[in-house]
Amino acid sequence: MQTPQSPVSSGTLARVDAILDAFLTDKAGRAAGQRLPGEISGTLRDFLFSGGKRVRPLLCVAGWHATAGDTDTPDPVLRAAASLELFHAFALIHDDVMDGSSTRRGRPTVHRAFTMRHADARTPATAARLGAGAAVLIGDMALAWSDELLHTSGLAQDQLTAALRVIDTMRTELMYGQYLDLLTTGRPDANSERPLWIARHKTAKYTVERPLHLGAALAAAGPDIQEAMSAYALPIGEAFQLRDDILGVYGAPGQTGKGRLDDLRDGKNTALVAHAYHSADAAQRRVLDSLVGDPALDDDGAARIRDVLEATGARTRVEDMIRTRHERACRILDQAPFHPAAVPSLRRLADAVAWRTS
Amino acid sequence: MQTPQSPVSSGTLARVDAILDAFLTDKAGRAAGQRLPGEISGTLRDFLFSGGKRVRPLLCVAGWHATAGDTDTPDPVLRAAASLELFHAFALIHDDVMDGSSTRRGRPTVHRAFTMRHADARTPATAARLGAGAAVLIGDMALAWSDELLHTSGLAQDQLTAALRVIDTMRTELMYGQYLDLLTTGRPDANSERPLWIARHKTAKYTVERPLHLGAALAAAGPDIQEAMSAYALPIGEAFQLRDDILGVYGAPGQTGKGRLDDLRDGKNTALVAHAYHSADAAQRRVLDSLVGDPALDDDGAARIRDVLEATGARTRVEDMIRTRHERACRILDQAPFHPAAVPSLRRLADAVAWRTS
Repeated sequence: MQTPQSPVSSGTLARVDAILDAFLTDKAGRAAGQRLPGEISGTLRDFLFSGGKRVRPLLCVAGWHATAGDTDTPDPVLRAAASLELFHAFALIHDDVMDGSSTRRGRPTVHRAFTMRHADARTPATAARLGAGAAVLIGDMALAWSDELLHTSGLAQDQLTAALRVIDTMRTELMYGQYLDLLTTGRPDANSERPLWIARHKTAKYTVERPLHLGAALAAAGPDIQEAMSAYALPIGEAFQLRDDILGVYGAPGQTGKGRLDDLRDGKNTALVAHAYHSADAAQRRVLDSLVGDPALDDDGAARIRDVLEATGARTRVEDMIRTRHERACRILDQAPFHPAAVPSLRRLADAVAWRTS
Repeated sequence: MQTPQSPVSSGTLARVDAILDAFLTDKAGRAAGQRLPGEISGTLRDFLFSGGKRVRPLLCVAGWHATAGDTDTPDPVLRAAASLELFHAFALIHDDVMDGSSTRRGRPTVHRAFTMRHADARTPATAARLGAGAAVLIGDMALAWSDELLHTSGLAQDQLTAALRVIDTMRTELMYGQYLDLLTTGRPDANSERPLWIARHKTAKYTVERPLHLGAALAAAGPDIQEAMSAYALPIGEAFQLRDDILGVYGAPGQTGKGRLDDLRDGKNTALVAHAYHSADAAQRRVLDSLVGDPALDDDGAARIRDVLEATGARTRVEDMIRTRHERACRILDQAPFHPAAVPSLRRLADAVAWRTS
């Protein structure tokens, strides 16, 4: 993803990373001092610094600037923004356990890596259980530490109270979205409303709207600003999810860091697959029924699914949906009550989200 | 467990339960209003109200009274105390996934219940993955909601800041304890120091010390009170864990709500097993080596392990350890700078923890 310029500059990215690095270094030092294992902080460090676009921290900082104007970003605001990245590590690590994914950011997922470490367990099933257990726990710690980073960020008490309200809302939304996603995975159908509804809860609100709201809340934004942020965020967030669905099937693994078969093998209930079902003839439907969600799906099978996605027009349709949503978000920016200095960043973030390749 | 009397009275228990009930009723109503699934709040309600001794909320309230004196417990303090029970639901639900336990509080564990719901999945492995995924997610939500209950408890900002500090510390300690427990499960040996060290982190601090500290922090306790609470809490917390180890092998499933084979099948690295290893002769060691941690362990095998635990004196030894720790905690109470009205409750809590049968 293209790095946005000032006021949400590449300097912001570097400062966010420095905060995460210092936080985990402190945690590693404390663990060593108490003879506690270093794998938890070490795994989280590897996870955070093997990739990640820092979309949520950048949006949080953009939300701050859209409200507070073109000032330097105070350190407590950056720390609060950085805490979103540690929260996101939690969400991804647990998501990978739930989806049974093997690869993330071009490396084995946390549960896979720990399953391999436990290869000497009594049975492969025991190794898998220990691997999943370690990943659940490391995810839990990432969540706890994201809280701690926020709580110790140096925010004023009023800011912290406002931040906690946004964070609490965000978590409940994300977890309901994840739950719906889990329930419907493996059972895709022609209902393209449901994937969009899940995308709204799991991605649009979590990835775009709430990070913006967090930054805005830290600058004590009024309801007009918060509402304009929602109006910008929701289409962009849906575009983010739709792009994710396309990349999950068509992306270059070297760029996305994850396999191109996982979503199809899992039978992920995406708008892409739903549109294909909707427009499929009987033969195409048989291809989808037999191959989408098949845990043994291979490259040939995936190619046959991709043919159906093209032939039914599903891929084109989803690209159109991304374009429409991107345009809608950009129109909002033309009239939103944001500080003008922040608008170019928000425009670049919209471009980056909609047209990203990783 | 015996219900303690005033000032931490059975009225406290009822008020804690009413808070949890109202919180989850509100969550269920909001979910219904947004056409979100009711299983998450429903599962948590079933989980919370199918058992649980509310040890942590009671200790939190006792910590408040030991500092603030014999006053009515303010509602925000009770809400903060109740949030510990929702956090504990998170910890148990994830713990059961990690341990692969089938039964909790006399019912199927959350991941087992959801695995059964997904019995129509493509393969049993898929059903198990979906069941575990739902349990991970419902646990995550319990954690998020415990935070929300605390954040919205009506505490003054200073109280909230003090509370968050205790909570952050508690979580890191618990999760390191869980991690060590996971690492050593299935690999028990004669080192009885390690189980005690894990018990200190996972149970003594989490179950006893930090709940007391939370209550004390809400009443702005000074360091002398906090230190006396630690001196009381750590032996009682170790006794709690040691009793848990005994109940896991000898308890009546009708009372403990969990099977008597799970800990042995998992090869749980308890002080009980460690002492048996330490004093075992060659034949006894062979019994332990072949049966402890055997996923196929049956009642006959468990009976053979119990014979070794008796014959090596391990069970007697652990009962002695519980007694010693209980006495130590009671001696602390004789001289601690606590408000006298709170001391009888703390003494009853110590008795209840050490001599409980469930």
